[in-house]
Amino acid sequence: MVKVEAGKTFHTHKGFIKFDDLIGKEYGSRILSSLGIEFTALKPLLRDYIMKSVRKTQITYPKDIALIVMFSGIGPGSLIVEAGTGTGALTTALAHYVKPDGKLCSYEIREEFLKTAERNLKRANMFDFVELKNKDVTIGIDESDVDAVILDLATPWLVVPHAYSALKPCGTIVSFSPTIDQIIKTVETLKENGFVDIETVECLMRGMQVEKGKTRPQTLMTAHTGYITFARKAVKTGS
Amino acid sequence: MVKVEAGKTFHTHKGFIKFDDLIGKEYGSRILSSLGIEFTALKPLLRDYIMKSVRKTQITYPKDIALIVMFSGIGPGSLIVEAGTGTGALTTALAHYVKPDGKLCSYEIREEFLKTAERNLKRANMFDFVELKNKDVTIGIDESDVDAVILDLATPWLVVPHAYSALKPCGTIVSFSPTIDQIIKTVETLKENGFVDIETVECLMRGMQVEKGKTRPQTLMTAHTGYITFARKAVKTGS
Amino acid sequence: MVKVEAGKTFHTHKGFIKFDDLIGKEYGSRILSSLGIEFTALKPLLRDYIMKSVRKTQITYPKDIALIVMFSGIGPGSLIVEAGTGTGALTTALAHYVKPDGKLCSYEIREEFLKTAERNLKRANMFDFVELKNKDVTIGIDESDVDAVILDLATPWLVVPHAYSALKPCGTIVSFSPTIDQIIKTVETLKENGFVDIETVECLMRGMQVEKGKTRPQTLMTAHTGYITFARKAVKTGS
Amino acid sequence: MVKVEAGKTFHTHKGFIKFDDLIGKEYGSRILSSLGIEFTALKPLLRDYIMKSVRKTQITYPKDIALIVMFSGIGPGSLIVEAGTGTGALTTALAHYVKPDGKLCSYEIREEFLKTAERNLKRANMFDFVELKNKDVTIGIDESDVDAVILDLATPWLVVPHAYSALKPCGTIVSFSPTIDQIIKTVETLKENGFVDIETVECLMRGMQVEKGKTRPQTLMTAHTGYITFARKAVKTGS
Repeated sequence: MVKVEAGKTFHTHKGFIKFDDLIGKEYGSRILSSLGIEFTALKPLLRDYIMKSVRKTQITYPKDIALIVMFSGIGPGSLIVEAGTGTGALTTALAHYVKPDGKLCSYEIREEFLKTAERNLKRANMFDFVELKNKDVTIGIDESDVDAVILDLATPWLVVPHAYSALKPCGTIVSFSPTIDQIIKTVETLKENGFVDIETVECLMRGMQVEKGKTRPQTLMTAHTGYITFARKAVKTGS
Repeated sequence: MVKVEAGKTFHTHKGFIKFDDLIGKEYGSRILSSLGIEFTALKPLLRDYIMKSVRKTQITYPKDIALIVMFSGIGPGSLIVEAGTGTGALTTALAHYVKPDGKLCSYEIREEFLKTAERNLKRANMFDFVELKNKDVTIGIDESDVDAVILDLATPWLVVPHAYSALKPCGTIVSFSPTIDQIIKTVETLKENGFVDIETVECLMRGMQVEKGKTRPQTLMTAHTGYITFARKAVKTGS
Repeated sequence: MVKVEAGKTFHTHKGFIKFDDLIGKEYGSRILSSLGIEFTALKPLLRDYIMKSVRKTQITYPKDIALIVMFSGIGPGSLIVEAGTGTGALTTALAHYVKPDGKLCSYEIREEFLKTAERNLKRANMFDFVELKNKDVTIGIDESDVDAVILDLATPWLVVPHAYSALKPCGTIVSFSPTIDQIIKTVETLKENGFVDIETVECLMRGMQVEKGKTRPQTLMTAHTGYITFARKAVKTGS
Repeated sequence: MVKVEAGKTFHTHKGFIKFDDLIGKEYGSRILSSLGIEFTALKPLLRDYIMKSVRKTQITYPKDIALIVMFSGIGPGSLIVEAGTGTGALTTALAHYVKPDGKLCSYEIREEFLKTAERNLKRANMFDFVELKNKDVTIGIDESDVDAVILDLATPWLVVPHAYSALKPCGTIVSFSPTIDQIIKTVETLKENGFVDIETVECLMRGMQVEKGKTRPQTLMTAHTGYITFARKAVKTGS
């Protein structure tokens, strides 16, 4: 993913491309590099914005973001609380799906990450739908009546009671964690705090090499990114 | 997923529930069955509408729908062509993500499926964003300048040239197929018809049983639903 | 797996077979049932003896037994200690690979299981290579200078110090456990007790439906049986 | 895996070890490198001989060898035909399990591989149980009444009729192939040539990082080595 600027060139191990050759052409056009190799100029998709986010933190993978979005039940118009922002990869995806009427409030205690996240969100044209908050979500959530609380931080269980208060009835909480110990603590805390329909899954994605006479799964894969835990807020009996 | 009607009861193997006890309560409320077992009344999420669609055809799984949505790059405002409609599970999900400004044209040759799909779409409040078409998509696609063509039918390779014509430059095509033979034919046809960035993946989702001292993956899982193939339209050289 | 007896019949949902028709024929012969469906009379393999063991306990799967055998490094002539015996499925496999010169001592505290195990071992012609011991292996192991200690019981960590004493230098310990909590306790105890090269793996086996034009992975699979932990005995410094 | 020689040193990125310090010590002893880091001198296991075979060809993985051994039903005393030998990794494992009374005849057309295989078999003390044959197995198999035919070569289907002739009734054939196209051709040829109980599987092994508070699956794994196809010889009707 590069920014096209007049008079400049883009260097690759398959030769360089003059941006001037590209300007004025439509997306999807093919162009030859200095070594005569054909390139296609593609418009970035959501997935590209996610994968190409500056990687200061370990970003969530598209396969996990896809499941987080689907299982959280969010869509255009949803009000979401996210923590932590990190470099904004998941933030970008969530904003993409709640626009044009929804809103995302994203908490992050490390100020330097918020600057990177802001840059990434602006590049993906998603900044208008996000409120970045330099606050500690384990202390409390300002918003109320939210549709979903989405957590990608080291101690999700500390946020569970605040999530319960912030969510509307039936609202969803989704938490992404790499280790077993994190999911055990999170699930126990969810059970103690009025959540139901609790479910934890992991997702393995394997690429296929597809070619007549040579078709087979690819040799290497990512074996683990993290576990995804879902739950829904039940109204407490007697309340 | 049931429709609450005054004066009626809902029977389960854990006792029955009188709908009159539910009426007037908010979503998320807990209620006791005739056997004294606690139930929670939850508002259906997108995933519930998908899973509970009348299963006249093999419906795509939420995990696959999640990846189809993510990798296709669609979102609020997108114009999508889908085929075939089936009972409308994938249709419901796609409509959910393109509303309020986007539109989905869904092709299906079997008229009886369209009736079921219409009912499912109306139940999920998604019918306003969908145009159901009783047409054979392997003959042609009426729309042009579309953002994504999404295929879940037996012979996706027959649709590839029509998809190329219908898509805008850089537009995406996504095809879901259970067998290897289908993906080989589809990938070959994509290569011959001006598509680039071709990629085929499969996704395995495994549930975890999370409980202190007993945590472990679940014993059974769905081993295979289908392969997902993605590609993007490049503008043909010289055109 | 059935015992062929003169004058008797074997009933299946595809018709019955008269054993008299089979007697005198060689293994591998085909025979017609009363409904005209062709059956093949196959000699049981090791895998058949394992899978058809009377299932009073949860037996280890062939895929796991295969890895236990390979990673333990055992073979003809090895001296092995196993616990617990259960119904003898793993015992049968281990005996198969250490015969004719090796020996297997198998501990089991529940006397009723030992009777079943004895029957299964005799049916598979493996009883001569096994010593069944009605003893609690968490109290101690009688043998010394053994090549491998193989554990399939609820509290493997309690056996680790006894395994260290019983093993020859470089000897292997292999433990099979379904839950994460078991492997954490086992690995910690192995580290504290002079074991090195500690490794934990899980193995997923997926069947393929192979048929021209319809090839695809099977729809269902066993998602989890257990984790296998391996380690080797290092000689303690100063000893 | 190194050969210890008097007067020499073994260099690692954690410092070097003087072999003279090792000589006279028993296997399993710990020793300090020149940088003060502790090493343990372990005796090679079967798995080590397999993994450390000179990798001139793509060698089969221990997990696959383990399943091949288990499903083929071989053990001490078995007579096996293998093709192709390659650098002898699978050959070493098969010899390990058929000794002391069994025998393995291994076919390989590329003479240079046979030399490497011979060296690897001698190093693992398995050469006495193997007959290496510089012959083309697709032309025919010399042996008869064999217990198992085990194939790891590019065109297993060409060997299927010869395997049928060489096998005893109920004998097993096991074939390892990386691509889908290979397994389709092999399974079809098996069906046409009197084999029954045909089954194809793939095996995924994932390592676990086990540490209190940080337990999780490892980040990377081998996504694919190959498919394993099993079948058994039925006696042809009328013979």
